[in-house]
Amino acid sequence: MKIHFETLDISTSKKIELVNITRQVEETVKKSGIKNGLCLVYAPHATAAIIANEDETGLKQDITKWLEENFPQNGKWKHNIIDDNAAAHLASAFISSYNIFPVKDGSLIRGTWQSIFLVEMDGPRRRRILIEVLGI
Amino acid sequence: MKIHFETLDISTSKKIELVNITRQVEETVKKSGIKNGLCLVYAPHATAAIIANEDETGLKQDITKWLEENFPQNGKWKHNIIDDNAAAHLASAFISSYNIFPVKDGSLIRGTWQSIFLVEMDGPRRRRILIEVLGI
Amino acid sequence: MKIHFETLDISTSKKIELVNITRQVEETVKKSGIKNGLCLVYAPHATAAIIANEDETGLKQDITKWLEENFPQNGKWKHNIIDDNAAAHLASAFISSYNIFPVKDGSLIRGTWQSIFLVEMDGPRRRRILIEVLGI
Repeated sequence: MKIHFETLDISTSKKIELVNITRQVEETVKKSGIKNGLCLVYAPHATAAIIANEDETGLKQDITKWLEENFPQNGKWKHNIIDDNAAAHLASAFISSYNIFPVKDGSLIRGTWQSIFLVEMDGPRRRRILIEVLGI
Repeated sequence: MKIHFETLDISTSKKIELVNITRQVEETVKKSGIKNGLCLVYAPHATAAIIANEDETGLKQDITKWLEENFPQNGKWKHNIIDDNAAAHLASAFISSYNIFPVKDGSLIRGTWQSIFLVEMDGPRRRRILIEVLGI
Repeated sequence: MKIHFETLDISTSKKIELVNITRQVEETVKKSGIKNGLCLVYAPHATAAIIANEDETGLKQDITKWLEENFPQNGKWKHNIIDDNAAAHLASAFISSYNIFPVKDGSLIRGTWQSIFLVEMDGPRRRRILIEVLGI
């Protein structure tokens, strides 16, 4: 069994932003030399998330709008008494800060319309993503 | 360490539909011969999801209703300018298209009320699910 | 490859409650002797969830409020014809009943503001959590 780690440093530029990291994740799988197993894409952050979906301009705006409507920045959140980012914490807790993909025959398995995104929800910030490939 | 893959082809018949795949997943774990490890149930699709919950007729209707209310088909989604399934993309992105279960002593571990479902959100369609069992 | 399991029994005292289990999860990783791999924190329950976020009093109240507003107890749920906990089932299905963390150099990797919580949504109850550490 082999395990390969890689870290990815990303600077975001907006409050809410989707950053496509598919290429970096797939390159890490290739580099690992692992043929079959799993790939964990993990953001050790409480105000960000990792999702997989289509990289289409309109859809990315819809995702931002859905987040703003379902986790409103100006909600009467108690966490905002000591900070200003309760909405991002709530969204991160419920969406989750990682995603997992199968690795099969040397490739990460994903659908045609599944790009991998870091979802920044409290930017601009520097974010660190850990990519772990585990298998044989 | 052993890894076992199986694919499952499913034809859905409605726009939103829950398909119970528990039996097929558990059979794959048995067939793998793996005694301890993990089982990843993965839908490589951007308009479907995998969840675990109770297989009760009323609850399945509630799940459908919750999806329709929280990801409305007729929302003013920008993705619908080029397609008609933004609601399903949003739901898939936020719910996630996989689920993971522990494998212990040769069995998939799940609660009494945890059946495993493919959640179709843009059907009717043919869907392919990848089941991966990994362990020793 | 090694696999280590531990179960954690928790008695909750409220309808909705966040129980911080970070210490027990981290101790299990240490006890496993596994240096690199994954840690799966899994609740085999259909009315609970596992999340990672900040352990701040105000934020925990916000999380409870968000759950109550987005999965209302008094919603017209069909599952409540035969039971009274449809809201908890819906929340559990969509939030998911597990969380996964990388294990690297003998430690569970998490952000400074990522504590690990059992989210009780149909308490008070006894809950059993399975912690699985897998790696080398």
